[in-house]
Amino acid sequence: MYRSHNCGELRMDHLGKEVTLSGWVQIGRDLGGLTFVDLRDRYGITQLVFNMDDKPELCEQARKLGREFVIRVTGTVNERSSKNPNRPTGDIEIIVTSLDILNASQVPPFIIEEETDGGDEIRMKYRYLDIRRSNVQQNLVFRSQLAIQTRSYLSDLGFIEVETPVLIKSTPEGARDFVVPSRMNPGEFYALPQSPQTFKQILMVAGMDKYFQIVKCFRDEDLRADRQPEFTQIDCEMSFVTQEDILNTFEGLTKHVFKALKGIELDDFPRMSYDDAMEKYGSDKPDLRFDMSFVDISDRVKGFDFKVLDDSEYTVAIVAKGAADQYSNKDIKKLTEWMQRPQVGAKGLINIKYLANDEVKSSVGKFYSDEVLNEWKTDVFNAEAGDMVLILTGEKEKTQKQMNVLRLEMADRLGLIKEGDFKPLWVVDFPLLEWDEESERFHAMHHPFTSPKKEDVQRMLNGDHETMKALRADAYDLVLNGSEIGGGSIRIHDRDLQSKNFDLLGFTKEEAEDQFGFLLGAFEYGAPPHGGIAFGFDRLCAVMNGQSSIRDFIAFPKNTSGRDVMINSPSNIAKEQLEELSIALDVKEE
Amino acid sequence: MYRSHNCGELRMDHLGKEVTLSGWVQIGRDLGGLTFVDLRDRYGITQLVFNMDDKPELCEQARKLGREFVIRVTGTVNERSSKNPNRPTGDIEIIVTSLDILNASQVPPFIIEEETDGGDEIRMKYRYLDIRRSNVQQNLVFRSQLAIQTRSYLSDLGFIEVETPVLIKSTPEGARDFVVPSRMNPGEFYALPQSPQTFKQILMVAGMDKYFQIVKCFRDEDLRADRQPEFTQIDCEMSFVTQEDILNTFEGLTKHVFKALKGIELDDFPRMSYDDAMEKYGSDKPDLRFDMSFVDISDRVKGFDFKVLDDSEYTVAIVAKGAADQYSNKDIKKLTEWMQRPQVGAKGLINIKYLANDEVKSSVGKFYSDEVLNEWKTDVFNAEAGDMVLILTGEKEKTQKQMNVLRLEMADRLGLIKEGDFKPLWVVDFPLLEWDEESERFHAMHHPFTSPKKEDVQRMLNGDHETMKALRADAYDLVLNGSEIGGGSIRIHDRDLQSKNFDLLGFTKEEAEDQFGFLLGAFEYGAPPHGGIAFGFDRLCAVMNGQSSIRDFIAFPKNTSGRDVMINSPSNIAKEQLEELSIALDVKEE
Repeated sequence: MYRSHNCGELRMDHLGKEVTLSGWVQIGRDLGGLTFVDLRDRYGITQLVFNMDDKPELCEQARKLGREFVIRVTGTVNERSSKNPNRPTGDIEIIVTSLDILNASQVPPFIIEEETDGGDEIRMKYRYLDIRRSNVQQNLVFRSQLAIQTRSYLSDLGFIEVETPVLIKSTPEGARDFVVPSRMNPGEFYALPQSPQTFKQILMVAGMDKYFQIVKCFRDEDLRADRQPEFTQIDCEMSFVTQEDILNTFEGLTKHVFKALKGIELDDFPRMSYDDAMEKYGSDKPDLRFDMSFVDISDRVKGFDFKVLDDSEYTVAIVAKGAADQYSNKDIKKLTEWMQRPQVGAKGLINIKYLANDEVKSSVGKFYSDEVLNEWKTDVFNAEAGDMVLILTGEKEKTQKQMNVLRLEMADRLGLIKEGDFKPLWVVDFPLLEWDEESERFHAMHHPFTSPKKEDVQRMLNGDHETMKALRADAYDLVLNGSEIGGGSIRIHDRDLQSKNFDLLGFTKEEAEDQFGFLLGAFEYGAPPHGGIAFGFDRLCAVMNGQSSIRDFIAFPKNTSGRDVMINSPSNIAKEQLEELSIALDVKEE
Repeated sequence: MYRSHNCGELRMDHLGKEVTLSGWVQIGRDLGGLTFVDLRDRYGITQLVFNMDDKPELCEQARKLGREFVIRVTGTVNERSSKNPNRPTGDIEIIVTSLDILNASQVPPFIIEEETDGGDEIRMKYRYLDIRRSNVQQNLVFRSQLAIQTRSYLSDLGFIEVETPVLIKSTPEGARDFVVPSRMNPGEFYALPQSPQTFKQILMVAGMDKYFQIVKCFRDEDLRADRQPEFTQIDCEMSFVTQEDILNTFEGLTKHVFKALKGIELDDFPRMSYDDAMEKYGSDKPDLRFDMSFVDISDRVKGFDFKVLDDSEYTVAIVAKGAADQYSNKDIKKLTEWMQRPQVGAKGLINIKYLANDEVKSSVGKFYSDEVLNEWKTDVFNAEAGDMVLILTGEKEKTQKQMNVLRLEMADRLGLIKEGDFKPLWVVDFPLLEWDEESERFHAMHHPFTSPKKEDVQRMLNGDHETMKALRADAYDLVLNGSEIGGGSIRIHDRDLQSKNFDLLGFTKEEAEDQFGFLLGAFEYGAPPHGGIAFGFDRLCAVMNGQSSIRDFIAFPKNTSGRDVMINSPSNIAKEQLEELSIALDVKEE
C-alpha cells in the first residue's frame, strides 16, 4: 500500500492515527534536532517531522532528500505547536516512523511553485514539471470540472453526446485543413475536422433532436500567440427550434457553469444587434465591463471651417472619465503615436480636455471655440469636469475599428476593469454575407449553412446583388468580457435555399455537389428546422478565470511553430512509411 | 414555436389540452372519414387524427403526406377508443386542428423501422435515414449514457479528465500510424495517437494522480469486419497504486455501469492467470458463460499403440454435453472439415460418443477398448450418458488455439449461451515478453512500458535470454463474455529498467532516445509508481448489449476499405494543398 490518505486531507480529527502518505518533497528544513519536510501531492501539502533524538538514522536519511524526490512515509498524526492557518492541513504534522524513497529526482530546471523562474520554452519542454505547479494543475482541474458541469447540464435537458468522426473529408472552403494520407486508398486523403458542422446537421436530419459533443477541432492556420492548431469546442445542435430557443438554452448553460464553478449568479444577458455593436463599440464583441461607448459626431463637427472633419465620412468620440488632468501634452503625443502604429493605422488623434478647474483645452481649439466645446460637453458627450474626449475621424469602418482599439486601451489605462467582473452579451442579427471588395465575391459571415432570417428568404432567392448585402441572418455570438466565447445560427434546411447560398458564395454546382452533396441529399429526405451553437472551450476556461491565454488551460499546447517541444513533434518519418502512403517529400529549397 | 411537447410524452393527464407537436410521418392510414398519421421523433410516436367531417381541407392535406415528411400540427389531446398498450402514448391521440408541412421527403430507399430491408452499403450511404431507426438511435443514446455513467463514477473517485493531444509523434513500434504532414515544418509529420499511453504516464509524473479520458484513438491497420481506423477508449492512469488497487477500481466501474444502465448487479469478478486461461480454455479471453473447459489427456492416451497420440506433444479434450446422440457420422465429418479449414488448421478431430443407451462409439475405438473409454468417462472427462467428447492433438500452442475455436463453436451449436448473461473475468499474470521465432526478437506482450512483477525485476536486469522468456508482468485484461474489453498494467517508472526493456525489445539507444527520450527524461525527475488501464469503449457498448458488431454503436463508421461512403471520404485534394504541405503523390501503377 502506498498511502492511507492523500497529502491534503489530514485534520485535527486524525490526531494519534497512524497514516501512510506518498508524494513529492516540496522542501526540507533541517533545524538540528528536528527535520521538517513538506510532502506534496495533487490534494495538498502535509508537514512531516523527523526527530533526531528518536530516530537518528531516519532523520539522517530525511536530511538527504532532494526537492521532488518521491517518498512514502508512515507515521502518527500530531498537533503542530505552531499552526499554519493558510494551509488546510496546517493544524497537524506527521511524526515519521518509516521512510521509503520511491524515486529520486534530479534538481528541476526551474522552481516548482506558483511563481516560477522558468521561461515559456523550458516550462513547455519539461511540461511534466510545469504541471506540478499548483496553478497549472488547478487550471486542468477547472477544465475537467467545466466539462463535467457542461455535460451534466446538457444531458439533463435531453442532449445526447454523439462522437462524430475525426477522419473526414477536405473542404477547401474556410480555413486550411490538416490532411491525412490514406494508405488503403492511394492518392486520397482524409481531413481533420475544423468543426463537426455538417455531421451535427446530419444528426438532426437523422432525428437525434438534441446533440452535443465536447470535441477536438483542427485548423492549419498560422499561429498567433493565442491560437492552437488543435482546440476544443462545446458543439451543439437542436431540432425544431427558433433562435430564441437556442439563446435561452445556452444562456442557461452559461449561467449554470458560472454558478456551479465560480459561485456567481449572472443576470439575464443583454442582447445587441450587430449594427448597434458596431455603432456603439466598433466591434462585434464589445467588452461591457465598462461603458465608454462611441459618440458619433460626424455631423456636429461640420461647418466650423475645419476641412479635415468637414470632408470626413465619419468622426467619432469617446469620453475618458477623469483623464483630462492626468494626460499631459507629452502623454497625448505618445498615445497618438501608439494609435499611428501600422497595426492600428490611425492618422491622428484629436482631444478635448474638460479640466477639473472648468477650463477647456483642445488640440482643435482654433476651429472650435470654448463656448462650442462647453456646449458639447453636456449636450453631446455627457461629460463632466475632469473628463477627456478622444476623437478619431476617417473612413467609417476603419475608424470604428481604430476607436475600438483606443477604447480598450483607455479602459486598461484608466483601470476601468474590475477583477472578477463578468459581463455577457448576445450579439444578434448578423449580416448573412460579407462582400469582399478585393476578391469581388461574397463570404459567409458565419458559415455557408447559416439561414437568412425568415423575412429575408424570398429576397435572397429572388433579389439582386445589392439586396444580398443587406440580408440578415439568424446568427448570434455569445460575448463575455470582450471575448467571443460562442457563436451559432439557425441553419438552412431546404435544398434550394442551400444551393442558392452556395451559388452566392461562388461554388459551382459541381463543387457544391462534390463537397456537400451528402448534405444537399439529406435535405431531400425530411430535414427538420434546426440550429445550433459552438463554444470555444479553451477560451471559456480562460475567460472564466480572468486569464487571457488559452495555453494555460491546455495540458500539452504547441508553440507558435506548431511544435510540441516536449516530445519534439512534428518529426521525420521513415521512407517505408512514405512509400506505404503513396506520397513523397517535395520540400522546396529556400 | 415548433412544439409544446415531444412525440413521446403525452398521456391521459393531458386530455383536453391543446398541444403542438413536430416530427416525422411514420405512416398514414386513410379510413375514409378519418385519416390517422403516426408522428415520430426521438422520444416516441403519437397518433394524429384528421376528421373528414370537421376539417375536410385539413384531412385532404393529411392524406397527401408521404413517409418521412416533416410536419408541425396543433390539436387537442383526446382519449383513444382503441388503445395501444404497446406504446407509452397509446392511450391518447391528437385531434388535429392545424397542419404545416415543414419539409417534404422523397421516398426513402429502405424501410425506416427496426427490421429494415436496407443492406449495409445503402444504410451507410444514407446513414441519416438509418439513424432514424429506433434501434440504431437507441444504440447511440446508450453510448452517450455509458459515457455519462463512466465519467460520473470516475469523477466521484477524484479522477480528472485531461485532454491529451491528437497531433503527436510517429513511433514505428506497434501498429501503423496515421500521419499528418506539417505545413509549417516542411518534410515533417505529426502522427495521430494509437493511444495516449506516454501522455498519461507524463501526467502521472506531473502529479495529476488520477487521470481519465474518453478519447479517440487511431490505427492504420487493415480492417477486419469489426475494426475501425478510429475508435474510442476509456483511458485511465493512477499514481501510487498496486495492481490490486487498479483491479478494484475498474471492477467497481464495470459493476457501476452495469447497475446503472442494465439494472444488473454483477458478482465479484473471478481472476485467472494467463497460464490457467491457456490451459483451461486455450485463450487469454475465455468466455465463461459456459464451462466446457479443456481436459489435458496427453499422458493418459499414450501407450495404446496409437502412434499419432503416442508421439504427440499435446492431446486435449472437451465434453459436448448431450451431443452424442445428435451428431451422426456425417455431422462429425462436416465438423471435422470445418476444423480443417485453413483459418483453423486442425489435422483431424477424434470423437468419443457416450450414447444415451450407454453404448460407447469412438473414431479411435480400435486403439481404445470400450472398457478403457468407459473408465475415462467419469474418471477423466466427468461425462455422462449422452455426452460427446471431442479431441484434438498436436503441437501444444496451436492445438490450444484450435480447441478454443471448437469450444466456442460447440457452445454456439449446443445453445449454451443464455441471452442476457454476463460473465466478467480478470486475466492476470501475463508474460512480460513474447519471443518471436520468426524475427528472432522479443515483443512486448502488453506494451513497452509494462513493469515486470516486483520479484522479477532483478532477474530482468541481470538474467540471461531464457530468464527473459519467463518474466511475468503486472499486466491484466478484463474479459467479458469472451471479449477483451479492457487491459492495462503497472508501468515501469525507473529509467534504467525502462532502458533495459527497450534493449530487450531491440531498440538501439538512439532509437529509444529519439522516440521516447522525453519519457526517459521524465523518469529522472521524480516519477511516482503508477499504472493504468484502457477500456475499448465501442466494444464495451456492444458487449453490454449482447451484440457482436461495434459498428452499430458508432454514429458514422467506415467500411472495410476505410471509406465513409456517406461523405465519400477519403478523397483527392487540390494540387495547391499538396504543394503547401511539401509533399507529392507517389502512387504506384498496379
